[in-house]
Amino acid sequence: MMMKQLNPKSHRIVILAEGSFGVLESKTATVLVRYLPENVVAVIDSTNNGKDVSEVIEIGKGIPVVKNLADAMQLQPTMLAIGIAPPGGELPTEWEGIIREAISRGLHIMSGLHHFLSENDEFVELAAKNNVVLWDARKPPENLPVATCKADDVDATVILTVGSDCRVGKMLSGIEITKAARERGLNAEFCPTGQNGIMVWGWGIAIDAVVSDFTAGAAEQIVLEGARNHDLLIVEGQGALVHPGYSGVTLSLLHGSMPDAMIFCHQPSRDTVARYTVPLPSLTEMIAQYEMLAAPIKPARVIGIALNCFDLSEKETVKAIKDIEKETGLPATDVVKYGSEKLVEVIANL
Amino acid sequence: MMMKQLNPKSHRIVILAEGSFGVLESKTATVLVRYLPENVVAVIDSTNNGKDVSEVIEIGKGIPVVKNLADAMQLQPTMLAIGIAPPGGELPTEWEGIIREAISRGLHIMSGLHHFLSENDEFVELAAKNNVVLWDARKPPENLPVATCKADDVDATVILTVGSDCRVGKMLSGIEITKAARERGLNAEFCPTGQNGIMVWGWGIAIDAVVSDFTAGAAEQIVLEGARNHDLLIVEGQGALVHPGYSGVTLSLLHGSMPDAMIFCHQPSRDTVARYTVPLPSLTEMIAQYEMLAAPIKPARVIGIALNCFDLSEKETVKAIKDIEKETGLPATDVVKYGSEKLVEVIANL
Repeated sequence: MMMKQLNPKSHRIVILAEGSFGVLESKTATVLVRYLPENVVAVIDSTNNGKDVSEVIEIGKGIPVVKNLADAMQLQPTMLAIGIAPPGGELPTEWEGIIREAISRGLHIMSGLHHFLSENDEFVELAAKNNVVLWDARKPPENLPVATCKADDVDATVILTVGSDCRVGKMLSGIEITKAARERGLNAEFCPTGQNGIMVWGWGIAIDAVVSDFTAGAAEQIVLEGARNHDLLIVEGQGALVHPGYSGVTLSLLHGSMPDAMIFCHQPSRDTVARYTVPLPSLTEMIAQYEMLAAPIKPARVIGIALNCFDLSEKETVKAIKDIEKETGLPATDVVKYGSEKLVEVIANL
Repeated sequence: MMMKQLNPKSHRIVILAEGSFGVLESKTATVLVRYLPENVVAVIDSTNNGKDVSEVIEIGKGIPVVKNLADAMQLQPTMLAIGIAPPGGELPTEWEGIIREAISRGLHIMSGLHHFLSENDEFVELAAKNNVVLWDARKPPENLPVATCKADDVDATVILTVGSDCRVGKMLSGIEITKAARERGLNAEFCPTGQNGIMVWGWGIAIDAVVSDFTAGAAEQIVLEGARNHDLLIVEGQGALVHPGYSGVTLSLLHGSMPDAMIFCHQPSRDTVARYTVPLPSLTEMIAQYEMLAAPIKPARVIGIALNCFDLSEKETVKAIKDIEKETGLPATDVVKYGSEKLVEVIANL
């Protein structure tokens, strides 16, 4: 029930990021370029037309930014991925036109929007006529159960990435740790809980799109599925306990996935919740919140810190890591700059 | 957007509780009898046929239990209320038949099921033909926003009922406190967040049926709506922070409603989460969890305890209240047995 409907790794992908490539709203585009570089053939953004992707987001060297779908078609794509989140959640009219055009040209569509393309009658009809798939990565499976603590019964070791806010690296750290654990010979699996992770990893449930009575149940299902064939699960965290909008998603995931331990993700340069005026408590207070809430259901400790220091110099990064290791007494690193072996080490020794 | 589609107070209601009246699954039936005693004309349950409602649930004297809808029709009902939660969430086939019969006999239908009657084509067609309304009290409004901390801007004092588990009295205490506050002359409003509260109070949003990204946003909308015409809001709590299935709903409600203070609800005879093996932490630990999680967004203290001592003798109840007041240092009472003036007193003095 959590299988992909399309395998992005067998497609030539053009990413729609019109007007927003390289800004926060194009997180999906960046994630696809980072983890599917062999598959992405172009990014559409007329405001960056002619540039190389690496000139805009520092990764993706050799992939061109083009001005429209017609130009992208010269690179023979087989799939259009929606790489940006629309302002206000509604699909802008211009994008509707681009999606219609892509379907008409025979491209499959991969989307992580809250607005499901597969529930739009016009798109569905056009897709049937052109024999293409509309894959809504955010659409949850039907009939999810209320959580019943079954995740506690799995043999696999379960690690959950948690954090201080959205967009601090819970997905990225999860993927990097999984890859490093595999290199070390561990039978590890990444368990995606959001649309971007699902698009690059090929399975999972976007738990923020699940009705709240069943959100913990969805997290439980993800762990049960991952544990069928793996000994170590790295579950992608969502939101933060101090996030005014998404804290409930975060707690559902903590109680549904029942981790054995947590990796705490944080951006040292951030001191308020992004887009809110809520000041972040200290790291030790935030860590204590997670451990205090886990305790009654299944005790779990934070065993390592993944820092997102993209906006710090090398010197500042080294200092941030050192300071935070001292403050928390836990191993810390920036997994993009220095790899995640330090965190895999503590996980392997659990 | 949160208005009722039917006003239950202007109807003669027959409650469907077939096979389950008086057991946990018929909470809706009990709530309707308690708060709409003038409107309930009969309860359908063939296994209790011929009894008085008060013989089964101790309240509702004078209301008969009947064996089927045909018998209930002699009391000239105008509405059928679904008074039980179906096992497994799916609508049993027998009930479908009763609902079809009720619609055919011209009764409006009021339902709090997760399974929406208004999305069942057969029911919708039959309802149109018979000119009756299918009211799904649990169905959330469209286009709810992500929470933005706007609930902090209202002039009204906001009180949230929280608790140690489901079914410990968060809705009932909220209604009783609201009524007592009004008797004291306060311009108070109860803010329902679940289907039962919505059915008896006539407005609100069932936040557990909202997609989890927007659950805190739904709680925020309820507070903004209540604050338009009232100075004191008593927001109905949901679930518990230690509940493995519903903790996310609880936290969304805490952060979305941004209360000024909380009333903690608890059943002294319960020591594990109902239907789970999770032991309840001590009262002081559970209270500390709520206060610790509220603090970063908006500090709020628990200022009183509402105890549900329905299964204790008078002597045991008095002892439980005394012990818990000593343990927590907070005023405690059983609002059904002794009224809620003690709690209104601390609220009025905030």
